[in-house]
Amino acid sequence: MINAIFEHVSVRKYKSDNIPDEVLTKILEAAARAANTGNMQVYSIVVTTDQKIKEELMPCHFNQAMVKQAPVVLTFCADFNRFNKWCSLRNADAGAYDNFLSFLTAAIDAVIAAQNSCLEAEAHGLGTCYLGTTIYTANKIIDVLKLPKGVVPITTLVIGYADENPELTDRLPLRAIVHKETYQDFSDEEINKVYLEKENRSDSKQFVAENNKENLAQVFTDIRYPRKNNIMFSEILLEVLKQQGFIE
Amino acid sequence: MINAIFEHVSVRKYKSDNIPDEVLTKILEAAARAANTGNMQVYSIVVTTDQKIKEELMPCHFNQAMVKQAPVVLTFCADFNRFNKWCSLRNADAGAYDNFLSFLTAAIDAVIAAQNSCLEAEAHGLGTCYLGTTIYTANKIIDVLKLPKGVVPITTLVIGYADENPELTDRLPLRAIVHKETYQDFSDEEINKVYLEKENRSDSKQFVAENNKENLAQVFTDIRYPRKNNIMFSEILLEVLKQQGFIE
Repeated sequence: MINAIFEHVSVRKYKSDNIPDEVLTKILEAAARAANTGNMQVYSIVVTTDQKIKEELMPCHFNQAMVKQAPVVLTFCADFNRFNKWCSLRNADAGAYDNFLSFLTAAIDAVIAAQNSCLEAEAHGLGTCYLGTTIYTANKIIDVLKLPKGVVPITTLVIGYADENPELTDRLPLRAIVHKETYQDFSDEEINKVYLEKENRSDSKQFVAENNKENLAQVFTDIRYPRKNNIMFSEILLEVLKQQGFIE
Repeated sequence: MINAIFEHVSVRKYKSDNIPDEVLTKILEAAARAANTGNMQVYSIVVTTDQKIKEELMPCHFNQAMVKQAPVVLTFCADFNRFNKWCSLRNADAGAYDNFLSFLTAAIDAVIAAQNSCLEAEAHGLGTCYLGTTIYTANKIIDVLKLPKGVVPITTLVIGYADENPELTDRLPLRAIVHKETYQDFSDEEINKVYLEKENRSDSKQFVAENNKENLAQVFTDIRYPRKNNIMFSEILLEVLKQQGFIE
């Protein structure tokens, strides 16, 4: 059993202590060992420790303070730039990967690598937090980190020594996410059952009350991840894929 | 240090031994503990052990024998179906997540969960292999696994007891994938340097000779992942995203 998997929590407050170089190297080597398509390694990791650049990244992550507080910010990218440059130098068809399949292939590989880094960091006693905002503001991150064509930021990990001790968060019962043999779709009654415990949690009820909503689902759809924002960020993201050369 | 990370290899030959139920449960619980966006858990895992269904999945994975040989096939999906059904039942805006941002959010979460399962399986002495073919033939997998609207298969893991003992595969030097502070783009000379060792490997040279190509890059672009196939599979994949309700 891998303890780091079962003890994972998102840490949002960090001490100023730096990560020793040999530990950071292990975290990056862990990413490099990840399974990847055809061993092409079509991903990259931008390691940002400079305070000024971290501050430039902050607005890309909705100004969450942990971006400048944590000593290390790792931005994992789908990256065909290096591979395409290699192909060009070898008289091979460098234009073979300017399409959506190649983008998603590289994005998947970048995330597998990111999770290796996350777990390896935690195994060294570090705290981590994924920033899902990376794909919301990929256009701005491209500017700050100077990502060339062929490179799209997919996810970000902040890493450092935790200055808080958060509890494990709740999860739906396993049957909500696991389907046996083929997909077994949910009846209304089954939906009610798998969400029952989550909806009855005191923190969920507090969340609903604070936001003046009728129920937890409305907190997600009206406050946290509303349609209007999702549509706006989708348009930006698709524009980024065009600009970086992955869709027409 | 997490040994499973540094010892990972892709296993393509499996013994017929089944995975004990308690081990499989741990592998699935590992997925459920994964970091995910807003704790919405917008992913699902289809656990296929039935020989007949595994054989139906085989052509979706280019007829690789390990799909029927390995006792367990896990298909990890981006899944807003359950979440949207919950929203509908709660008078919340279930149409908020029929967009590309929501798809990529769910896809990233599905891959983080998959990598937890992969590593947890390996920590229990099991072999695994990712099947990148999942996004090539998502349309067919949707049919075989009966995935409803809102669900897109992203990656697949076959898991079982290894019947081979493959060596660690090579990797590019770390500087090929790691960029300090911001992206440091490659000069031609740097590209030559980071690919030198890979190109000089005897297995690479054999690969080039067997395929009658001038160099390793051409094996990728002309034989393994050619432009024509990538364009065809991109079209199918984008059609799947439309059909499953994630783009217009």
